[in-house]
Amino acid sequence: MLKVNEHYLKLQASYLFSDIAKRVATFQANYPEREVIKLGIGDVTNPLPAACIKAMHAAVDEMATTTGFRGYGPEQGYAFLREAIAKNDFQDRGAEVQADEIFVSDGAKCDTGNIQELFATDARIALPDPVYPVYLDTNVMAGRTGTFKDGRFEGLVYLDSTKANNYVPDLPTEPVDLIYLCFPNNPTGSTITNEQLQVWVDFARDSKALILFDAAYEAFIRDPNLPHSIYEIKGAREVAIEFRSFSKSAGFTGTRCAYTVVPKECMAYDAQGGKQAIHPLWNRRHCTKFNGVSYPVQRAAEAVYSPEGKAQCQALIDGYLANAKIIGKAMGDLGYSYVGGDNAPYIWIWGNRDSWEFFDLLLNEAGVVCTPGAGFGKCGQGYIRLSAFNSEANVIKAMERIRQALG
Amino acid sequence: MLKVNEHYLKLQASYLFSDIAKRVATFQANYPEREVIKLGIGDVTNPLPAACIKAMHAAVDEMATTTGFRGYGPEQGYAFLREAIAKNDFQDRGAEVQADEIFVSDGAKCDTGNIQELFATDARIALPDPVYPVYLDTNVMAGRTGTFKDGRFEGLVYLDSTKANNYVPDLPTEPVDLIYLCFPNNPTGSTITNEQLQVWVDFARDSKALILFDAAYEAFIRDPNLPHSIYEIKGAREVAIEFRSFSKSAGFTGTRCAYTVVPKECMAYDAQGGKQAIHPLWNRRHCTKFNGVSYPVQRAAEAVYSPEGKAQCQALIDGYLANAKIIGKAMGDLGYSYVGGDNAPYIWIWGNRDSWEFFDLLLNEAGVVCTPGAGFGKCGQGYIRLSAFNSEANVIKAMERIRQALG
Repeated sequence: MLKVNEHYLKLQASYLFSDIAKRVATFQANYPEREVIKLGIGDVTNPLPAACIKAMHAAVDEMATTTGFRGYGPEQGYAFLREAIAKNDFQDRGAEVQADEIFVSDGAKCDTGNIQELFATDARIALPDPVYPVYLDTNVMAGRTGTFKDGRFEGLVYLDSTKANNYVPDLPTEPVDLIYLCFPNNPTGSTITNEQLQVWVDFARDSKALILFDAAYEAFIRDPNLPHSIYEIKGAREVAIEFRSFSKSAGFTGTRCAYTVVPKECMAYDAQGGKQAIHPLWNRRHCTKFNGVSYPVQRAAEAVYSPEGKAQCQALIDGYLANAKIIGKAMGDLGYSYVGGDNAPYIWIWGNRDSWEFFDLLLNEAGVVCTPGAGFGKCGQGYIRLSAFNSEANVIKAMERIRQALG
Repeated sequence: MLKVNEHYLKLQASYLFSDIAKRVATFQANYPEREVIKLGIGDVTNPLPAACIKAMHAAVDEMATTTGFRGYGPEQGYAFLREAIAKNDFQDRGAEVQADEIFVSDGAKCDTGNIQELFATDARIALPDPVYPVYLDTNVMAGRTGTFKDGRFEGLVYLDSTKANNYVPDLPTEPVDLIYLCFPNNPTGSTITNEQLQVWVDFARDSKALILFDAAYEAFIRDPNLPHSIYEIKGAREVAIEFRSFSKSAGFTGTRCAYTVVPKECMAYDAQGGKQAIHPLWNRRHCTKFNGVSYPVQRAAEAVYSPEGKAQCQALIDGYLANAKIIGKAMGDLGYSYVGGDNAPYIWIWGNRDSWEFFDLLLNEAGVVCTPGAGFGKCGQGYIRLSAFNSEANVIKAMERIRQALG
């Protein structure tokens, strides 16, 4: 008799976005004449950069010819892309990352979800609250938690991100092995300084822990003093894996390309306490359970690093950041306190009421869809997240309506 | 201190293809003037069908416009593709499969590798020998085996596929929970009849086991009496998951698209013996650790089912099957016994000597690269695999050279 992985049965049904969809559908059924503006989900809305379109067309044409056709590529990604990434995203910023430490994949969701497989089931997990649900759910599936109780899973170390610590969690007071960090943060839009990140790197080194650093929103950083990569921090190569994505930096959410950096010095330990390099373990997983990213997509990603591609991506991000400013100013004018929006596409707003109550208020009175903060964890209760991913016209209209409804 | 997943350390280094590459490199260094023809790896060589190229260009153009742009799609795949698959690959053949039972992914390697996550660590695994290494290695990684001893992992049930059973394994004599089958087979090229497959389905039903049926080479079936899908077999919907791929049927090895069918009736069991439908579990995994296939790639896959696409794919496969016939005839003329090649792109040849010895002989005397059967498991010793994936001219030339070398 085939038995299921019982840990899957502990998972909480993912009600957040289906609940949102249901409430929006009900609203639209009741008020078919009212137009809804969505500032909820973190999905980009603008077309792909022209440089990426051009590169993708050219690659598709290659696939139509006997000489240009490409079958299986290297599981880790083509050298042309890995080298462009290493140079532009790291070496040019003074961070030491080599091309063969980069693993190209079809998404940061996949990589942040799969990476935990490399580690022992009894690894002690520290993860932020509020949090991107993938970090949490994949550890539940792997059996690293007890049951769900009072809004949290037993057996995890939650790192509260609150107004009190300016949404950068303090070090845990108990031992942990695997630490998830995400900056610029989803969902709060908060950022971390070099000094703050150095504290985490030093902590990981002292406790032989590993930091999983999700930098998917790195392209939104405009403050020149903020680190773009954890490898700008001294000692990080031994204790940190970094996740990046073209989803938000170049609008690839529907095109699918991302990458993970595993420095060769990065170590975990075997049962005898011996050092085990993580690079060959991830390489083995990547080669065994993955078969590389679509060739035309890798060519499109390479084009992100061309002079035209860089300018076009910058313009794309600038547009979303301008939207974020409009949202922040409007909410601030209405007397709400918030964080994010300066170096991130998200604005995290303290509603001073239940998250879902605020959600309903914005939907019913302004026809605007947000994401209730409570959906990201216990510390998200009382907050909502507004996203800058929409057209400028829609953002202006949405904030006008919110002003009228709440003002 | 972060500990590694110790099961990873049990894995045998994947020497097969790197060993092959090393020997080929040495040969080329020694004989730079001699041209090597590769009939080893199972990678397609012909360009993508024109219908797919056209559809992909059109989709890329959509991604360049505000109205046509697509961000995150459904994790399970777009309805246009799932519906085309359900109709053309199943319903039109009389197999009952609904669109919402199809999960589109970026590769059958990923799906056959990830599916085992849904099941208990102590599930008893039955897998063929010789075998596609992914089934084996992913279960080693998950801790379902002991150590490697005398060429096999302890704790697994190996299903010998030999000349004695015409390369279709007999039922296991001990209880098993999860059964991997692949037909048309990689590496042997053998096929299974309806009656033989019915025996396996009945066995799975009797023992509440699950069959993982890899049909990646289904498109090569030309014998009208052979089943293309396990769902053509009575009772299979309750005990079988099927894996399909566009890699071999439409040349998508570098384009990346595949799918997995999980019928709603398919069950596993919880600790209390209660039924647990597998469909919602796989859906949960897919939504948590995967973010959908690239939109232009899904449009290219959809085009496989257009009238032009069907004709072009058929021509593509016919070409490879003609190559297989050339290979089979030549080896038969030389007195070698073999299986496969009629309904599969692989020819599995009994060399009557060590696999690697035969490999070296073909490389050194004929300049032809094969795959040594021993690389696929203990039962592969003494065999080599020749693949039909090359141009007709190269295949003819390769067989001429082998004739001269061995004749």
